Amino acid sequence: MHILIIGAAGMVGRKLTNKLVEEGAADQLTLVDVVTPEAPKGFKGKVAAEAADLAVAGVAEKIVAARPDVIVHLAAIVSGEAEADFDRGYRINLDATRALYEAIRQEGLKSPYKPRLVFTSSIAVFGAPFPDKIGDDYFTTPLTSYGTQKAIGELLLADYSRRGFFDGIGIRLPTVCVRPGKPNKAASGFFSNILREPLAGQEAILPVGEDVRHWHASPRAAVAFLRHAMTMDLTPLGARRNLSMPGLSATVGEQIEALRRIAGEKAVRLIRREPDPVIMKIVSGWPRDFDTKRAAALGFKAESTFDEIIRIHIEDELGGKIG
Amino acid sequence: MHILIIGAAGMVGRKLTNKLVEEGAADQLTLVDVVTPEAPKGFKGKVAAEAADLAVAGVAEKIVAARPDVIVHLAAIVSGEAEADFDRGYRINLDATRALYEAIRQEGLKSPYKPRLVFTSSIAVFGAPFPDKIGDDYFTTPLTSYGTQKAIGELLLADYSRRGFFDGIGIRLPTVCVRPGKPNKAASGFFSNILREPLAGQEAILPVGEDVRHWHASPRAAVAFLRHAMTMDLTPLGARRNLSMPGLSATVGEQIEALRRIAGEKAVRLIRREPDPVIMKIVSGWPRDFDTKRAAALGFKAESTFDEIIRIHIEDELGGKIG
Repeated sequence: MHILIIGAAGMVGRKLTNKLVEEGAADQLTLVDVVTPEAPKGFKGKVAAEAADLAVAGVAEKIVAARPDVIVHLAAIVSGEAEADFDRGYRINLDATRALYEAIRQEGLKSPYKPRLVFTSSIAVFGAPFPDKIGDDYFTTPLTSYGTQKAIGELLLADYSRRGFFDGIGIRLPTVCVRPGKPNKAASGFFSNILREPLAGQEAILPVGEDVRHWHASPRAAVAFLRHAMTMDLTPLGARRNLSMPGLSATVGEQIEALRRIAGEKAVRLIRREPDPVIMKIVSGWPRDFDTKRAAALGFKAESTFDEIIRIHIEDELGGKIG
Repeated sequence: MHILIIGAAGMVGRKLTNKLVEEGAADQLTLVDVVTPEAPKGFKGKVAAEAADLAVAGVAEKIVAARPDVIVHLAAIVSGEAEADFDRGYRINLDATRALYEAIRQEGLKSPYKPRLVFTSSIAVFGAPFPDKIGDDYFTTPLTSYGTQKAIGELLLADYSRRGFFDGIGIRLPTVCVRPGKPNKAASGFFSNILREPLAGQEAILPVGEDVRHWHASPRAAVAFLRHAMTMDLTPLGARRNLSMPGLSATVGEQIEALRRIAGEKAVRLIRREPDPVIMKIVSGWPRDFDTKRAAALGFKAESTFDEIIRIHIEDELGGKIG
């Protein structure tokens, strides 16, 4: 199987690549990002890693010409940046996505070609006010340009799939927590920072109150969602190709309690409260809880406690040890 | 007030123009369509009527440069045509709409400019299976490229409005019935044909069963929706800028009974049953009924009986007489 990952240099892209190599799921890998992705270690198949910008005319066509069996589209400008730079957000998150879809269609017009396409969407397609739990048929009224661009990517995905140009599925990821590495420009960064930094013996800033509730899944769960989406039977989806993924609804206070149970009071004391009205306002428009019946019935699973989410971080990122 | 109508040569565009002239609502009118719209009779203000294709680079910028106070965007490729010609549908229904929005934003970057923008959407943004009544927070899962393009236009409208580039409202029109004139390429044509043609003494073909239920409003109601949207206070909409309009949920059988009450058995006998599996399949994916609380609370109103809808057709199109 030839698998193409677009956005392969990002956190989820790297973890997904490693997972595929570990599983021996692919005999050919094409890894694309705006910076050249690292070729995975221990992969015995054919691998190509290249830097490319899909928003540039002709680039998507060139990448798709190799006719991968599965395409995972992870590339995106994050929410904070898409909000700060309107043109860039639409160029990368909408135009490049559409260019990819269209390149697949054009390739298929030459001779039959219908790859599996996994599109990474986000719970940012939803915008407050919300019901207690967001159901599978709740409308998408994003409160960011990023969320708008993802919602449009979903609509296009469904239409291109319906027309038979590819076999698409849109995966709405919960906020990924604990996100390893350094903070990116996402306003949601603090949800990870307040766990990751104390676990490494570092201070972290909490810009919101402890009563803030949000929807989380570990990086390991996020990769498992995408992995499942790459090969599962899509027939049960019908024309409704986009799915909110399972996750864990938890308050910041519950996150902190889990940290206390696992790393003790010393770690919790490293969280510094610095309320930030701007971040508080952004976060107040974000989903708090979901009822993800469809995804659950299709075999998608996430963590059920924050203790589990923290333990996964310690296992996968800290070699099993707390710093 | 300077009002720009894009798609002014169409049925709704012409009726809206006449309404605005009748009311003296504008002192300047700019009428645009792919064919040159007729200048309205009896209008004392400044009028410009021009043929233009907004999907061509630079055209939207030129039209918006006159800085109209209100822009009504009606132009679209109908559903049947957008389904038959994928590229043309996306070019006109998506690219041209986005070009218009973007032209307004660019004009505003030169010096402050924030017009009212009324976007004509459609209940085609919804796709079966449905609940008994589609509520205001039901998700948009279109089953046509036309519906997809309209749903994307709605998302962009909300984002551009949220960012302050214009003050937008999206109006999801019910199927307009009785549509005057000749059938267009819309698969929904028969809903009007089976009334309009018999009222004019002509035969009409009914391609579906009498139990088919659908969502209707008269041309007069459709124009009233747009007229209201042009000047109403949009503050109560918040970030949720797109509204399903009120309508009348009726079966084909109920339409025929109303025709019988108003025009007698002779008219009903002109309806010829010719079941068409293709049209039956398309129609089975269409909405049947809505709960339009939000629109009702904001002052939008439609007809409550099909007798009323037929009488409006007789008054507005047939000079009060049945042929």
